[in-house]
Amino acid sequence: MKWLHRPSVAALAHKLRVTYPIIQAPMVGVSTPRLAAAVSNAGGLGSVGLGTSDVASAREQIRATRALTPQPFNANFFCHAPTTRDTAKEQAWLKHMAPLFAEYGVDAPERLSCGYASFVEMSDAMTEMLLEEKPPVVSFHFGLPPKECVAALKEAGIVTLACVTSPCEARLAQEVGVDALVAQGYEAGGHRGVFDPSHDLQLGTLGLVQLLAKESTLPIIAAGGIMSGKSIAAAIYLGASGVQLGTAFILCPESSADQAYREALQSDQAFHTWVSPAVSGRPARGMANRVFTDIGVSESILRDMPSYPLPYDATKALDRAARAAGSTHFAVQWAGQAAPLARPMPASELVQTLAEETEQVTQLQSKH
Amino acid sequence: MKWLHRPSVAALAHKLRVTYPIIQAPMVGVSTPRLAAAVSNAGGLGSVGLGTSDVASAREQIRATRALTPQPFNANFFCHAPTTRDTAKEQAWLKHMAPLFAEYGVDAPERLSCGYASFVEMSDAMTEMLLEEKPPVVSFHFGLPPKECVAALKEAGIVTLACVTSPCEARLAQEVGVDALVAQGYEAGGHRGVFDPSHDLQLGTLGLVQLLAKESTLPIIAAGGIMSGKSIAAAIYLGASGVQLGTAFILCPESSADQAYREALQSDQAFHTWVSPAVSGRPARGMANRVFTDIGVSESILRDMPSYPLPYDATKALDRAARAAGSTHFAVQWAGQAAPLARPMPASELVQTLAEETEQVTQLQSKH
Repeated sequence: MKWLHRPSVAALAHKLRVTYPIIQAPMVGVSTPRLAAAVSNAGGLGSVGLGTSDVASAREQIRATRALTPQPFNANFFCHAPTTRDTAKEQAWLKHMAPLFAEYGVDAPERLSCGYASFVEMSDAMTEMLLEEKPPVVSFHFGLPPKECVAALKEAGIVTLACVTSPCEARLAQEVGVDALVAQGYEAGGHRGVFDPSHDLQLGTLGLVQLLAKESTLPIIAAGGIMSGKSIAAAIYLGASGVQLGTAFILCPESSADQAYREALQSDQAFHTWVSPAVSGRPARGMANRVFTDIGVSESILRDMPSYPLPYDATKALDRAARAAGSTHFAVQWAGQAAPLARPMPASELVQTLAEETEQVTQLQSKH
Repeated sequence: MKWLHRPSVAALAHKLRVTYPIIQAPMVGVSTPRLAAAVSNAGGLGSVGLGTSDVASAREQIRATRALTPQPFNANFFCHAPTTRDTAKEQAWLKHMAPLFAEYGVDAPERLSCGYASFVEMSDAMTEMLLEEKPPVVSFHFGLPPKECVAALKEAGIVTLACVTSPCEARLAQEVGVDALVAQGYEAGGHRGVFDPSHDLQLGTLGLVQLLAKESTLPIIAAGGIMSGKSIAAAIYLGASGVQLGTAFILCPESSADQAYREALQSDQAFHTWVSPAVSGRPARGMANRVFTDIGVSESILRDMPSYPLPYDATKALDRAARAAGSTHFAVQWAGQAAPLARPMPASELVQTLAEETEQVTQLQSKH
C-alpha cells in the first residue's frame, strides 16, 4: 500500500510494530480489552484506557488484553494535577446538583468521592508494574509523567506517546522524552488532553497538525475528526505519520457502549456535540443532552466547580438515578464533531476498511 | 498538475474560470482591489469584501478591481439579519465601554452608529447593480440572499457562493440555488459565517468538510486553517474541490493590514487566537489582545450586547483613541488558528507557491 510506504508513516508503523499506524483511542468506559485486541489483531494499535484504574486493576486489564492478542497494544494513563479537596466547593456543587436529583425523587450524594488518582501520584508503583507487564505501548493524557518514568519505560523497550493540544505542550512532551505525539484537535470526542484547561487554545486538528509538523521533530499522530480513509489521507498530507480514532470505534460490537449511546450516535444527536467541563471538571466533548445543558448552566457555576474528577462522581450518580427512572437524559455519551460518520461494524473490519479506503483515496490521486 | 486534474477540482476551476481553485478570502479592512487583482492575475480567485459598502461604493470597488485584472474575481456581501436598535442596550454597552475609553482620557461615544446595512435590506438595489457590473463571482456571508436574487445572478452568468458552517446551513444554501459552498471551519480567522450565532456548532474544517461532502451535492470550498500546499491537499482528500485562504494573504504587500497587524502576525501572538462576539456582536476569531480580554469580559455582558454590527462602532472608536495615545492594544487583528504559518510575500508569488506545494505534496505521495 502506497501510503504505508511514505517514510514517516512507515517509520511510525515500524516503531509501533503494527501494520497500520491506526490507533484506536483509549476510551475509559467504552474501550475494552476485547476491542483493543480486535484492533491490534487486525493490524492497528488497540488501546485500553487505564486512567481510572489503580495498579492492580491496570495490571489485570493489561493481562486481559495480552491474553487476547499477540500483537502490540497501548495502555493509556491520566497525568492530571492531583485532585485538590475543598469541602465548601464540593458542598456547593452538590447543592447545585440537588434539584436535578430531586427530579428523579432522590437526594444528591452527601459527599463527592474522588474515585481515582493521577498517574503522577502513583508514578513509582505504576511504572514498576508497567516494567513487569511490559505493555508494548504506553500513552499519557492530561499531562506528562516524570522524565525518569519515560526513561525507564523506553529502556524496557516500551514505546511512549503523549497527547498534546498545542505547540507548547508538544515542546514539554518532547522534553520528557516521549517517542511520538498524539495531536488531539478540538474536534475530538471525550476529555480534551489539554494540560491546563485555563490555557486551552482549542486548536482544530487541521491547524494543530500543521503547527506541530513545523515545530516538532517527533512523529505526529493526528486525532479528532478522523473517521475514514479520506481523513486519514488528509492527516498524513498535513504532516501526521499516523492517526488515532475514538468515535469511529464506538459502534463496534466490541466496545462497551450501551444501547442508548449507540442509538444516539446513529441519530441526529450526533450532529450536536459540545465541549464542557460540566461532566467531570475538565473540558470534554460529547453529544448534547441534559448533562451539557442542565449541569453546566453558567460561567460562574463552572468557575467554581470542584477539582477534576470530583464532579464526575455526582454526574454518574445522577445518571444512575435517571436511568432507574427510565431516562438516559444524563448519560455521558462522548463523541467527536464528525460523529455522524461513525459506522457500526466489527473492529477488525473497521481497521481493514480504514486501511483500504486510505489506499483507494491516495490511489485515486495518483491516477489523475 | 495532477491535483488539478481530479474531476471535482477541475470542475470547480472550470466553473470559476480560474487556473487554480484557490480563493483569497474577502476580508473587509484587509483585502483590497489590488490584492484581489494580484490573486486573480496569478490564476487564483481574488475577492473584495463589500459587506460594509453601500451600492455606490460596492460598484466603485468592483470597477476598481476590474480595472486591475481581466480575470474573474469575487465580490462578497453580508446577509446578516437586519440590525435591531435598542437604546437601552446600546447605552448600557457604551457605559460598559466607558472605563476603557477613560484610560485614554476620552469619553465613549454618545451613541452607536450602525455603519452599514445587510444585503438582505437592499437586495433589489444591490442585485440591480450586480447585474449591471457583472462581477464574475458573488459570495455571501452570515446568511443567504433571496432566492430570486441568486436566480437573477445565475441567469446573468454570475457564479454564486455561500459560506456555511454546518450541514443544516448547507441545505439552506442549496435550496436558494448557489453554485458552491464555502465550508468555513472553526479555525478560520475573522467573522464566523454562522447564520444564527446562538446555534453555532463550532465545527472544525476537518469534520465540516467531511460532513458536507457526505450530505451535499454542491462543490465544497474548504476554509479555515488552510495555509500551504499540505493543507490544500488535505482539504481535497477530505472532499473539497477548492480552498479559501484569508490569514495566508494578510502579509502580502497588497493587503491593507497595517504595520502593527503584520508584526503581531509574525510574533508569538499568532499562536493565540480566540473567537468572541465582543468586537462587533457576532463571533469572530482574532489574535488575543485587549479587544478579547477586556471588552467581552463575561457571559452576561456578551448576552446583552447590542445587535451586530453596532458594537463595532464603539470598538473602532476605542481603537482610534488608543492609537492616538500610541497603543494598538485594542486593534482588531483577525487571524485563523494556523496564523503562525502565514508568509510575507507578494500575492502572485503566494498563489504560485500554494499551487506548486500542492503539486509537490501530491507527487510525493504518488512516488511511494
